[in-house]
Amino acid sequence: MKVFINSSLIEAPETIGGTSIDPTDRGLTLGDGVFETIAVRSGRILRMNAHLSRFSRGASILGIESPMVDEDLIEALDKVLQANAITDGALRITLTRGPSIRGLMPPKTPSPSLIITASINAPDFDAGGCVKTVIVSGTRCNEYSPLSSIKSLNYLDNILALMEAREKGADDALLLNSTGNIASASSSNLFAVFGGELVTPPIKDGCLGGIMRADVIRCLNGVERSIPPLDLAKASEAFLTNCLSIRPIISVDGQLIRDGQVGIVTQQAQKMVLRIK
Amino acid sequence: MKVFINSSLIEAPETIGGTSIDPTDRGLTLGDGVFETIAVRSGRILRMNAHLSRFSRGASILGIESPMVDEDLIEALDKVLQANAITDGALRITLTRGPSIRGLMPPKTPSPSLIITASINAPDFDAGGCVKTVIVSGTRCNEYSPLSSIKSLNYLDNILALMEAREKGADDALLLNSTGNIASASSSNLFAVFGGELVTPPIKDGCLGGIMRADVIRCLNGVERSIPPLDLAKASEAFLTNCLSIRPIISVDGQLIRDGQVGIVTQQAQKMVLRIK
Repeated sequence: MKVFINSSLIEAPETIGGTSIDPTDRGLTLGDGVFETIAVRSGRILRMNAHLSRFSRGASILGIESPMVDEDLIEALDKVLQANAITDGALRITLTRGPSIRGLMPPKTPSPSLIITASINAPDFDAGGCVKTVIVSGTRCNEYSPLSSIKSLNYLDNILALMEAREKGADDALLLNSTGNIASASSSNLFAVFGGELVTPPIKDGCLGGIMRADVIRCLNGVERSIPPLDLAKASEAFLTNCLSIRPIISVDGQLIRDGQVGIVTQQAQKMVLRIK
Repeated sequence: MKVFINSSLIEAPETIGGTSIDPTDRGLTLGDGVFETIAVRSGRILRMNAHLSRFSRGASILGIESPMVDEDLIEALDKVLQANAITDGALRITLTRGPSIRGLMPPKTPSPSLIITASINAPDFDAGGCVKTVIVSGTRCNEYSPLSSIKSLNYLDNILALMEAREKGADDALLLNSTGNIASASSSNLFAVFGGELVTPPIKDGCLGGIMRADVIRCLNGVERSIPPLDLAKASEAFLTNCLSIRPIISVDGQLIRDGQVGIVTQQAQKMVLRIK
Protein backbone atom coordinates (compact mmCIF):
# COMPACT_ATOMS: atom_id res chain seq x y z
CA MET A 1 0.00 0.00 0.00
CA LYS A 2 1.32 3.42 -0.98
CA VAL A 3 0.40 6.38 1.22
CA PHE A 4 0.88 10.11 0.97
CA ILE A 5 2.40 11.74 4.05
CA ASN A 6 2.96 15.47 3.99
CA SER A 7 4.71 16.03 0.68
CA SER A 8 5.61 12.54 -0.45
CA LEU A 9 4.08 9.36 -1.78
CA ILE A 10 5.77 6.48 0.02
CA GLU A 11 5.48 2.75 0.46
CA ALA A 12 3.72 2.30 3.82
CA PRO A 13 6.21 0.71 6.20
CA GLU A 14 5.56 -2.71 7.72
CA THR A 15 4.74 -1.52 11.16
CA ILE A 16 2.91 -4.15 13.15
CA GLY A 17 4.93 -4.49 16.31
CA GLY A 18 7.60 -2.28 14.73
CA THR A 19 9.07 1.02 15.81
CA SER A 20 7.26 3.36 13.46
CA ILE A 21 3.63 4.44 13.63
CA ASP A 22 1.41 3.00 10.94
CA PRO A 23 -0.68 5.57 9.02
CA THR A 24 -3.64 3.21 9.51
CA ASP A 25 -3.15 2.94 13.29
CA ARG A 26 -6.61 3.37 14.81
CA GLY A 27 -5.17 5.61 17.50
CA LEU A 28 -4.41 8.10 14.75
CA THR A 29 -7.36 7.48 12.44
CA LEU A 30 -10.19 7.16 15.01
CA GLY A 31 -8.79 8.10 18.42
CA ASP A 32 -9.18 4.41 19.33
CA GLY A 33 -7.07 4.07 22.46
CA VAL A 34 -6.26 5.19 25.99
CA PHE A 35 -3.39 6.96 27.70
CA GLU A 36 -1.95 7.93 31.07
CA THR A 37 0.18 10.92 32.01
CA ILE A 38 2.31 10.18 35.05
CA ALA A 39 4.14 12.77 37.14
CA VAL A 40 7.88 12.46 37.72
CA ARG A 41 9.31 14.36 40.69
CA SER A 42 12.98 14.28 41.73
CA GLY A 43 13.48 11.32 39.41
CA ARG A 44 10.64 9.30 40.98
CA ILE A 45 7.54 8.11 39.14
CA LEU A 46 4.54 9.07 41.33
CA ARG A 47 1.38 7.01 41.94
CA MET A 48 2.46 4.26 39.53
CA ASN A 49 -0.02 1.64 40.76
CA ALA A 50 -3.03 3.97 40.58
CA HIS A 51 -2.08 4.95 37.01
CA LEU A 52 -1.55 1.38 35.86
CA SER A 53 -4.84 0.37 37.40
CA ARG A 54 -6.77 3.17 35.64
CA PHE A 55 -4.90 2.44 32.39
CA SER A 56 -5.92 -1.17 32.59
CA ARG A 57 -9.54 -0.28 33.40
CA GLY A 58 -9.75 2.12 30.42
CA ALA A 59 -8.26 -0.46 28.05
CA SER A 60 -10.72 -3.02 29.32
CA ILE A 61 -13.73 -0.70 28.73
CA LEU A 62 -12.56 -0.30 25.13
CA GLY A 63 -11.77 -4.00 24.81
CA ILE A 64 -8.09 -3.40 24.00
CA GLU A 65 -5.58 -5.88 25.36
CA SER A 66 -2.27 -4.31 26.33
CA PRO A 67 0.69 -6.12 24.77
CA MET A 68 2.64 -5.69 28.04
CA VAL A 69 2.02 -6.91 31.57
CA ASP A 70 2.43 -4.33 34.35
CA GLU A 71 5.89 -5.55 35.32
CA ASP A 72 7.26 -5.03 31.79
CA LEU A 73 5.42 -1.73 31.50
CA ILE A 74 7.10 -0.44 34.67
CA GLU A 75 10.47 -1.54 33.30
CA ALA A 76 9.78 0.23 29.99
CA LEU A 77 8.67 3.43 31.80
CA ASP A 78 11.86 3.38 33.78
CA LYS A 79 13.95 2.88 30.63
CA VAL A 80 12.35 5.92 28.98
CA LEU A 81 12.86 7.98 32.14
CA GLN A 82 16.54 7.06 32.33
CA ALA A 83 17.19 7.41 28.59
CA ASN A 84 15.85 10.98 28.67
CA ALA A 85 17.48 11.81 32.02
CA ILE A 86 14.24 13.32 33.34
CA THR A 87 14.04 14.35 36.98
CA ASP A 88 10.93 16.59 36.93
CA GLY A 89 8.36 16.13 34.24
CA ALA A 90 5.95 13.49 33.02
CA LEU A 91 5.80 10.12 31.34
CA ARG A 92 3.00 9.23 28.98
CA ILE A 93 1.80 5.74 28.01
CA THR A 94 -0.41 5.52 24.92
CA LEU A 95 -2.16 2.27 24.00
CA THR A 96 -4.05 2.07 20.70
CA ARG A 97 -5.97 -0.75 19.05
CA GLY A 98 -3.26 -0.74 16.36
CA PRO A 99 -3.49 -0.72 12.56
CA SER A 100 -6.62 -1.81 10.71
CA ILE A 101 -8.41 -1.62 7.40
CA ARG A 102 -11.08 1.04 6.80
CA GLY A 103 -14.20 1.00 8.99
CA LEU A 104 -15.10 1.36 12.64
CA MET A 105 -15.24 -2.31 13.59
CA PRO A 106 -12.03 -3.47 15.30
CA PRO A 107 -10.08 -6.20 13.49
CA LYS A 108 -10.72 -9.76 14.69
CA THR A 109 -7.08 -10.15 15.75
CA PRO A 110 -5.85 -6.67 16.64
CA SER A 111 -2.18 -5.80 17.15
CA PRO A 112 -2.35 -2.97 19.70
CA SER A 113 0.41 -0.34 19.69
CA LEU A 114 2.08 0.79 22.88
CA ILE A 115 4.03 4.05 22.94
CA ILE A 116 5.84 5.69 25.85
CA THR A 117 7.09 9.26 25.66
CA ALA A 118 8.62 11.55 28.25
CA SER A 119 8.66 15.30 28.72
CA ILE A 120 10.32 17.74 31.06
CA ASN A 121 8.24 20.37 32.80
CA ALA A 122 7.88 23.58 30.80
CA PRO A 123 10.04 26.39 32.29
CA ASP A 124 6.90 28.20 33.51
CA PHE A 125 5.34 25.06 35.03
CA ASP A 126 3.86 25.72 38.48
CA ALA A 127 2.11 22.77 40.12
CA GLY A 128 0.31 25.17 42.47
CA GLY A 129 -0.21 28.22 40.23
CA CYS A 130 -3.42 30.24 40.43
CA VAL A 131 -5.91 30.03 37.57
CA LYS A 132 -8.61 32.26 36.17
CA THR A 133 -11.44 30.16 34.74
CA VAL A 134 -14.37 30.70 32.41
CA ILE A 135 -17.38 28.48 31.85
CA VAL A 136 -17.15 27.76 28.14
CA SER A 137 -20.13 27.87 25.80
CA GLY A 138 -18.63 26.16 22.73
CA THR A 139 -18.92 22.58 23.91
CA ARG A 140 -19.98 20.36 26.82
CA CYS A 141 -19.02 17.10 28.49
CA ASN A 142 -21.08 14.06 27.55
CA GLU A 143 -22.02 12.32 30.80
CA TYR A 144 -23.79 9.61 28.78
CA SER A 145 -20.49 8.42 27.31
CA PRO A 146 -18.18 6.00 29.14
CA LEU A 147 -15.33 7.99 27.56
CA SER A 148 -15.93 10.87 29.99
CA SER A 149 -14.67 8.73 32.84
CA ILE A 150 -11.57 7.27 31.16
CA LYS A 151 -8.48 8.82 29.58
CA SER A 152 -9.27 7.99 25.97
CA LEU A 153 -7.54 9.51 22.93
CA ASN A 154 -10.67 11.60 22.23
CA TYR A 155 -9.60 14.93 23.69
CA LEU A 156 -10.86 17.38 21.11
CA ASP A 157 -13.75 18.74 23.16
CA ASN A 158 -11.28 19.53 25.93
CA ILE A 159 -8.90 21.18 23.45
CA LEU A 160 -11.70 23.34 22.02
CA ALA A 161 -12.77 24.28 25.56
CA LEU A 162 -9.22 25.30 26.53
CA MET A 163 -8.77 27.29 23.30
CA GLU A 164 -12.03 29.16 24.02
CA ALA A 165 -10.89 29.91 27.59
CA ARG A 166 -7.52 31.25 26.43
CA GLU A 167 -9.19 33.41 23.78
CA LYS A 168 -11.28 34.90 26.58
CA GLY A 169 -8.16 35.70 28.59
CA ALA A 170 -8.59 32.90 31.14
CA ASP A 171 -6.14 30.14 32.06
CA ASP A 172 -8.53 27.21 32.00
CA ALA A 173 -12.03 26.22 30.95
CA LEU A 174 -14.88 24.83 33.02
CA LEU A 175 -17.15 22.51 31.02
CA LEU A 176 -20.82 21.95 31.70
CA ASN A 177 -22.47 18.58 31.05
CA SER A 178 -25.70 18.18 29.10
CA THR A 179 -27.75 18.80 32.26
CA GLY A 180 -26.00 22.13 32.77
CA ASN A 181 -23.94 21.23 35.85
CA ILE A 182 -20.19 21.80 35.89
CA ALA A 183 -18.40 18.54 35.06
CA SER A 184 -14.70 19.45 35.02
CA ALA A 185 -11.96 21.72 33.70
CA SER A 186 -10.17 20.98 30.41
CA SER A 187 -7.77 18.48 31.98
CA SER A 188 -8.46 18.75 35.72
CA ASN A 189 -11.13 17.90 38.26
CA LEU A 190 -12.97 20.68 40.08
CA PHE A 191 -13.26 21.06 43.85
CA ALA A 192 -15.18 23.81 45.67
CA VAL A 193 -15.82 24.59 49.33
CA PHE A 194 -19.38 25.44 50.44
CA GLY A 195 -20.02 26.20 54.12
CA GLY A 196 -16.81 24.40 55.05
CA GLU A 197 -17.70 21.30 53.04
CA LEU A 198 -15.37 20.19 50.23
CA VAL A 199 -17.40 19.19 47.15
CA THR A 200 -16.49 17.73 43.76
CA PRO A 201 -18.78 16.66 40.89
CA PRO A 202 -19.62 12.93 40.87
CA ILE A 203 -18.25 10.74 38.04
CA LYS A 204 -21.79 10.34 36.68
CA ASP A 205 -21.79 14.08 35.90
CA GLY A 206 -19.22 13.39 33.17
CA CYS A 207 -15.82 13.88 34.82
CA LEU A 208 -12.72 11.72 34.81
CA GLY A 209 -12.01 9.65 37.91
CA GLY A 210 -8.80 11.60 38.55
CA ILE A 211 -6.12 9.96 40.68
CA MET A 212 -5.33 13.23 42.46
CA ARG A 213 -9.10 13.73 42.83
CA ALA A 214 -9.37 10.41 44.70
CA ASP A 215 -6.47 11.37 46.98
CA VAL A 216 -8.02 14.76 47.77
CA ILE A 217 -11.41 13.20 48.53
CA ARG A 218 -9.75 10.67 50.85
CA CYS A 219 -7.35 13.04 52.65
CA LEU A 220 -9.77 15.96 53.07
CA ASN A 221 -13.12 14.17 53.45
CA GLY A 222 -14.46 15.46 50.15
CA VAL A 223 -18.02 14.67 49.07
CA GLU A 224 -19.36 14.09 45.56
CA ARG A 225 -22.26 16.34 44.59
CA SER A 226 -23.34 18.12 41.41
CA ILE A 227 -22.18 21.74 41.14
CA PRO A 228 -24.51 24.08 39.21
CA PRO A 229 -22.67 27.12 37.76
CA LEU A 230 -24.60 29.56 39.93
CA ASP A 231 -23.49 27.72 43.07
CA LEU A 232 -19.82 27.95 42.16
CA ALA A 233 -19.95 31.72 42.43
CA LYS A 234 -20.91 31.25 46.11
CA ALA A 235 -17.97 28.94 46.94
CA SER A 236 -15.61 30.18 49.65
CA GLU A 237 -12.75 28.58 47.72
CA ALA A 238 -12.22 26.38 44.67
CA PHE A 239 -9.34 24.52 43.07
CA LEU A 240 -8.42 22.21 40.20
CA THR A 241 -6.58 18.91 40.49
CA ASN A 242 -4.82 16.62 38.05
CA CYS A 243 -1.90 14.25 38.46
CA LEU A 244 0.57 17.09 37.93
CA SER A 245 -0.96 19.91 39.97
CA ILE A 246 -3.38 21.35 42.55
CA ARG A 247 -4.17 24.88 41.39
CA PRO A 248 -6.34 27.45 43.21
CA ILE A 249 -9.14 28.99 41.13
CA ILE A 250 -9.05 32.74 41.70
CA SER A 251 -11.94 33.66 39.43
CA VAL A 252 -14.86 32.29 37.42
CA ASP A 253 -16.11 34.33 34.47
CA GLY A 254 -14.28 37.37 35.86
CA GLN A 255 -15.87 37.09 39.30
CA LEU A 256 -13.30 36.65 42.09
CA ILE A 257 -13.49 33.71 44.48
CA ARG A 258 -12.32 34.58 48.01
CA ASP A 259 -11.12 37.98 46.73
CA GLY A 260 -8.54 36.11 44.66
CA GLN A 261 -6.74 34.75 47.76
CA VAL A 262 -5.72 31.10 48.14
CA GLY A 263 -7.99 29.47 50.77
CA ILE A 264 -7.02 27.26 53.68
CA VAL A 265 -8.56 24.03 52.29
CA THR A 266 -6.71 24.55 49.01
CA GLN A 267 -3.45 25.03 50.92
CA GLN A 268 -4.14 21.89 52.96
CA ALA A 269 -4.76 19.93 49.75
CA GLN A 270 -1.51 21.17 48.25
CA LYS A 271 0.42 20.38 51.40
CA MET A 272 -1.10 16.96 52.11
CA VAL A 273 -1.72 15.58 48.66
CA LEU A 274 0.51 17.12 46.01
CA ARG A 275 3.56 15.04 46.83
CA ILE A 276 1.98 11.74 47.84
CA LYS A 277 4.07 8.96 46.36
CA MET B 1 14.04 12.48 22.70
CA LYS B 2 14.00 8.72 23.09
CA VAL B 3 10.64 6.96 22.87
CA PHE B 4 9.45 3.43 23.45
CA ILE B 5 7.36 1.96 20.64
CA ASN B 6 6.08 -1.57 21.03
CA SER B 7 9.16 -3.48 22.08
CA SER B 8 11.99 -1.05 21.49
CA LEU B 9 13.48 2.14 22.83
CA ILE B 10 14.38 4.29 19.83
CA GLU B 11 15.51 7.79 19.01
CA ALA B 12 12.34 9.61 17.94
CA PRO B 13 12.68 10.43 14.25
CA GLU B 14 12.72 14.00 13.00
CA THR B 15 9.28 14.01 11.53
CA ILE B 16 7.99 17.51 11.00
CA GLY B 17 6.99 17.59 7.36
CA GLY B 18 8.61 14.18 6.94
CA THR B 19 7.19 10.85 5.83
CA SER B 20 6.88 9.11 9.18
CA ILE B 21 4.33 9.78 11.88
CA ASP B 22 5.67 11.47 14.98
CA PRO B 23 4.79 9.72 18.28
CA THR B 24 3.84 13.18 19.60
CA ASP B 25 1.51 13.96 16.68
CA ARG B 26 -1.65 15.40 18.24
CA GLY B 27 -3.77 13.35 15.85
CA LEU B 28 -2.45 10.27 17.64
CA THR B 29 -2.14 11.64 21.18
CA LEU B 30 -5.38 13.66 21.43
CA GLY B 31 -7.47 12.92 18.34
CA ASP B 32 -6.74 16.51 17.28
CA GLY B 33 -7.68 16.52 13.61
CA VAL B 34 -10.26 15.89 10.89
CA PHE B 35 -10.69 13.44 8.05
CA GLU B 36 -12.75 12.65 4.97
CA THR B 37 -13.55 9.29 3.41
CA ILE B 38 -14.26 9.62 -0.30
CA ALA B 39 -15.88 6.97 -2.48
CA VAL B 40 -14.12 5.73 -5.61
CA ARG B 41 -16.31 4.03 -8.25
CA SER B 42 -15.01 2.74 -11.58
CA GLY B 43 -11.79 4.67 -10.98
CA ARG B 44 -13.59 7.98 -10.42
CA ILE B 45 -13.45 10.00 -7.20
CA LEU B 46 -17.06 10.90 -6.30
CA ARG B 47 -18.33 14.21 -4.86
CA MET B 48 -14.82 15.65 -4.59
CA ASN B 49 -15.91 19.27 -4.14
CA ALA B 50 -18.42 18.50 -1.40
CA HIS B 51 -15.79 16.51 0.49
CA LEU B 52 -13.11 19.19 0.17
CA SER B 53 -15.58 21.81 1.29
CA ARG B 54 -16.58 19.83 4.43
CA PHE B 55 -12.91 19.00 5.10
CA SER B 56 -12.04 22.67 4.97
CA ARG B 57 -14.99 23.60 7.22
CA GLY B 58 -14.01 20.99 9.83
CA ALA B 59 -10.38 22.13 9.82
CA SER B 60 -11.52 25.71 10.22
CA ILE B 61 -13.74 24.86 13.24
CA LEU B 62 -10.69 23.27 14.88
CA GLY B 63 -8.42 26.13 13.79
CA ILE B 64 -6.10 23.83 11.80
CA GLU B 65 -4.63 25.20 8.60
CA SER B 66 -4.21 22.59 5.88
CA PRO B 67 -0.68 22.58 4.44
CA MET B 68 -2.16 22.02 0.95
CA VAL B 69 -4.50 24.06 -1.20
CA ASP B 70 -7.39 22.17 -2.84
CA GLU B 71 -5.67 21.95 -6.23
CA ASP B 72 -2.62 20.19 -4.74
CA LEU B 73 -4.84 18.02 -2.55
CA ILE B 74 -6.76 16.79 -5.62
CA GLU B 75 -3.47 16.03 -7.35
CA ALA B 76 -2.24 14.09 -4.29
CA LEU B 77 -5.53 12.13 -4.04
CA ASP B 78 -5.17 11.19 -7.68
CA LYS B 79 -1.57 10.09 -7.17
CA VAL B 80 -2.58 7.78 -4.30
CA LEU B 81 -5.47 6.39 -6.35
CA GLN B 82 -3.20 5.64 -9.32
CA ALA B 83 -0.31 4.30 -7.22
CA ASN B 84 -2.64 1.76 -5.60
CA ALA B 85 -4.54 1.02 -8.83
CA ILE B 86 -7.89 1.35 -7.10
CA THR B 87 -11.06 1.26 -9.17
CA ASP B 88 -13.67 0.62 -6.45
CA GLY B 89 -12.95 1.61 -2.87
CA ALA B 90 -12.25 4.72 -0.89
CA LEU B 91 -9.66 7.43 -0.35
CA ARG B 92 -9.10 8.94 3.06
CA ILE B 93 -7.55 12.33 3.87
CA THR B 94 -6.44 12.86 7.48
CA LEU B 95 -5.33 16.28 8.70
CA THR B 96 -3.90 16.61 12.20
CA ARG B 97 -2.56 19.59 14.12
CA GLY B 98 0.86 17.87 13.97
CA PRO B 99 3.45 17.18 16.66
CA SER B 100 3.53 19.12 19.93
CA ILE B 101 4.86 19.07 23.45
CA ARG B 102 2.67 17.75 26.30
CA GLY B 103 -0.57 19.59 27.10
CA LEU B 104 -3.84 20.41 25.38
CA MET B 105 -3.00 23.88 24.11
CA PRO B 106 -1.97 23.86 20.43
CA PRO B 107 1.57 25.05 19.68
CA LYS B 108 1.91 28.69 18.63
CA THR B 109 3.29 27.67 15.24
CA PRO B 110 1.82 24.26 14.46
CA SER B 111 3.08 22.00 11.66
CA PRO B 112 -0.08 20.11 10.64
CA SER B 113 0.29 16.60 9.20
CA LEU B 114 -1.57 15.52 6.09
CA ILE B 115 -1.97 11.84 5.31
CA ILE B 116 -3.79 10.19 2.40
CA THR B 117 -4.51 6.47 2.37
CA ALA B 118 -6.53 4.31 -0.01
CA SER B 119 -8.47 1.09 0.39
CA ILE B 120 -10.30 -1.28 -1.88
CA ASN B 121 -13.82 -2.36 -0.99
CA ALA B 122 -13.96 -5.43 1.21
CA PRO B 123 -15.07 -8.54 -0.76
CA ASP B 124 -18.44 -8.51 1.06
CA PHE B 125 -19.02 -4.77 0.53
CA ASP B 126 -22.59 -4.02 -0.57
CA ALA B 127 -23.45 -0.33 -0.99
CA GLY B 128 -27.16 -1.20 -0.79
CA GLY B 129 -27.14 -4.09 1.69
CA CYS B 130 -29.92 -4.45 4.27
CA VAL B 131 -29.14 -3.75 7.93
CA LYS B 132 -30.58 -4.82 11.25
CA THR B 133 -30.17 -2.04 13.81
CA VAL B 134 -30.34 -1.70 17.57
CA ILE B 135 -30.62 1.44 19.65
CA VAL B 136 -27.52 1.22 21.83
CA SER B 137 -27.52 1.95 25.54
CA GLY B 138 -23.77 2.19 26.18
CA THR B 139 -23.21 5.71 24.88
CA ARG B 140 -24.91 8.68 23.25
CA CYS B 141 -24.18 11.48 20.79
CA ASN B 142 -23.30 14.84 22.27
CA GLU B 143 -25.39 17.41 20.43
CA TYR B 144 -23.74 20.17 22.51
CA SER B 145 -20.36 19.50 20.89
CA PRO B 146 -19.37 20.99 17.53
CA LEU B 147 -17.55 17.69 16.93
CA SER B 148 -20.87 15.90 16.32
CA SER B 149 -21.29 17.81 13.09
CA ILE B 150 -17.76 17.41 11.70
CA LYS B 151 -15.62 14.38 10.83
CA SER B 152 -13.09 14.73 13.64
CA LEU B 153 -10.64 12.05 14.72
CA ASN B 154 -12.75 11.42 17.87
CA TYR B 155 -14.66 8.33 16.79
CA LEU B 156 -14.56 6.20 19.92
CA ASP B 157 -18.20 6.67 20.89
CA ASN B 158 -19.18 5.47 17.43
CA ILE B 159 -16.80 2.50 17.71
CA LEU B 160 -18.25 1.52 21.11
CA ALA B 161 -21.77 1.86 19.71
CA LEU B 162 -20.99 -0.38 16.72
CA MET B 163 -19.29 -2.97 18.95
CA GLU B 164 -22.38 -3.06 21.18
CA ALA B 165 -24.64 -3.50 18.14
CA ARG B 166 -22.55 -6.35 16.76
CA GLU B 167 -22.51 -8.06 20.16
CA LYS B 168 -26.30 -7.90 20.10
CA GLY B 169 -26.38 -9.56 16.68
CA ALA B 170 -27.24 -6.40 14.73
CA ASP B 171 -25.35 -4.86 11.80
CA ASP B 172 -25.36 -1.25 12.96
CA ALA B 173 -26.09 0.94 15.97
CA LEU B 174 -28.52 3.80 16.36
CA LEU B 175 -27.31 6.42 18.85
CA LEU B 176 -29.56 8.64 20.92
CA ASN B 177 -28.54 12.18 21.85
CA SER B 178 -28.72 13.55 25.39
CA THR B 179 -32.38 14.51 24.88
CA GLY B 180 -33.24 10.94 23.95
CA ASN B 181 -33.92 11.45 20.23
CA ILE B 182 -32.14 9.34 17.63
CA ALA B 183 -29.17 11.26 16.24
CA SER B 184 -27.51 8.87 13.79
CA ALA B 185 -26.06 5.41 13.16
CA SER B 186 -22.42 4.62 13.93
CA SER B 187 -21.15 6.08 10.65
CA SER B 188 -24.31 6.90 8.72
CA ASN B 189 -27.23 9.32 8.76
CA LEU B 190 -30.74 8.04 9.44
CA PHE B 191 -33.77 8.59 7.20
CA ALA B 192 -37.30 7.37 7.92
CA VAL B 193 -40.62 7.68 6.08
CA PHE B 194 -43.73 8.71 8.05
CA GLY B 195 -47.05 9.04 6.21
CA GLY B 196 -45.19 9.44 2.91
CA GLU B 197 -42.89 12.13 4.29
CA LEU B 198 -39.12 11.53 4.28
CA VAL B 199 -37.59 12.68 7.59
CA THR B 200 -34.01 12.88 8.91
CA PRO B 201 -32.74 14.26 12.26
CA PRO B 202 -31.57 17.89 12.12
CA ILE B 203 -27.83 18.63 12.56
CA LYS B 204 -28.62 20.26 15.93
CA ASP B 205 -29.68 16.81 17.21
CA GLY B 206 -26.04 15.76 17.04
CA CYS B 207 -25.56 14.20 13.61
CA LEU B 208 -22.94 14.75 10.96
CA GLY B 209 -23.90 16.86 7.96
CA GLY B 210 -23.45 13.91 5.62
CA ILE B 211 -22.79 14.60 1.96
CA MET B 212 -25.04 11.73 0.87
CA ARG B 213 -27.59 13.02 3.41
CA ALA B 214 -27.64 16.42 1.69
CA ASP B 215 -28.11 14.79 -1.72
CA VAL B 216 -30.99 12.63 -0.45
CA ILE B 217 -32.71 15.64 1.16
CA ARG B 218 -32.37 17.59 -2.08
CA CYS B 219 -33.38 14.84 -4.53
CA LEU B 220 -36.26 13.40 -2.49
CA ASN B 221 -37.59 16.50 -0.70
CA GLY B 222 -36.53 15.28 2.73
CA VAL B 223 -37.35 17.31 5.84
CA GLU B 224 -35.30 17.69 9.03
CA ARG B 225 -37.16 16.79 12.21
CA SER B 226 -36.25 15.04 15.47
CA ILE B 227 -36.98 11.31 15.54
CA PRO B 228 -37.87 9.87 18.97
CA PRO B 229 -37.15 6.11 19.21
CA LEU B 230 -40.83 5.23 19.65
CA ASP B 231 -41.67 7.01 16.40
CA LEU B 232 -39.09 5.03 14.41
CA ALA B 233 -41.02 1.83 15.08
CA LYS B 234 -43.97 3.40 13.22
CA ALA B 235 -41.97 4.32 10.11
CA SER B 236 -43.17 2.75 6.84
CA GLU B 237 -39.51 2.53 5.78
CA ALA B 238 -36.08 3.63 6.99
CA PHE B 239 -32.57 3.68 5.61
CA LEU B 240 -29.01 4.74 6.39
CA THR B 241 -26.78 6.91 4.22
CA ASN B 242 -23.08 7.67 4.12
CA CYS B 243 -20.76 8.56 1.28
CA LEU B 244 -20.26 4.90 0.41
CA SER B 245 -23.78 3.49 0.74
CA ILE B 246 -27.57 3.79 1.05
CA ARG B 247 -28.70 0.79 3.10
CA PRO B 248 -32.30 -0.16 3.95
CA ILE B 249 -33.01 -0.72 7.65
CA ILE B 250 -34.97 -3.93 7.97
CA SER B 251 -35.33 -3.96 11.75
CA VAL B 252 -34.88 -1.88 14.91
CA ASP B 253 -34.33 -3.74 18.19
CA GLY B 254 -35.66 -6.91 16.54
CA GLN B 255 -38.89 -5.28 15.34
CA LEU B 256 -39.28 -5.45 11.54
CA ILE B 257 -39.83 -2.31 9.51
CA ARG B 258 -42.11 -2.88 6.48
CA ASP B 259 -41.99 -6.63 7.17
CA GLY B 260 -38.29 -6.52 6.32
CA GLN B 261 -38.93 -5.48 2.69
CA VAL B 262 -37.08 -2.63 0.97
CA GLY B 263 -39.49 0.28 0.50
CA ILE B 264 -40.10 2.38 -2.59
CA VAL B 265 -38.55 5.61 -1.21
CA THR B 266 -35.40 3.70 -0.23
CA GLN B 267 -35.20 2.26 -3.74
CA GLN B 268 -35.68 5.71 -5.24
CA ALA B 269 -32.88 7.07 -3.05
CA GLN B 270 -30.56 4.27 -4.13
CA LYS B 271 -31.42 4.76 -7.79
CA MET B 272 -31.28 8.57 -7.85
CA VAL B 273 -28.55 9.37 -5.39
CA LEU B 274 -26.08 6.53 -4.92
CA ARG B 275 -24.11 7.20 -8.10
CA ILE B 276 -24.27 10.98 -8.28
CA LYS B 277 -20.88 12.21 -9.34
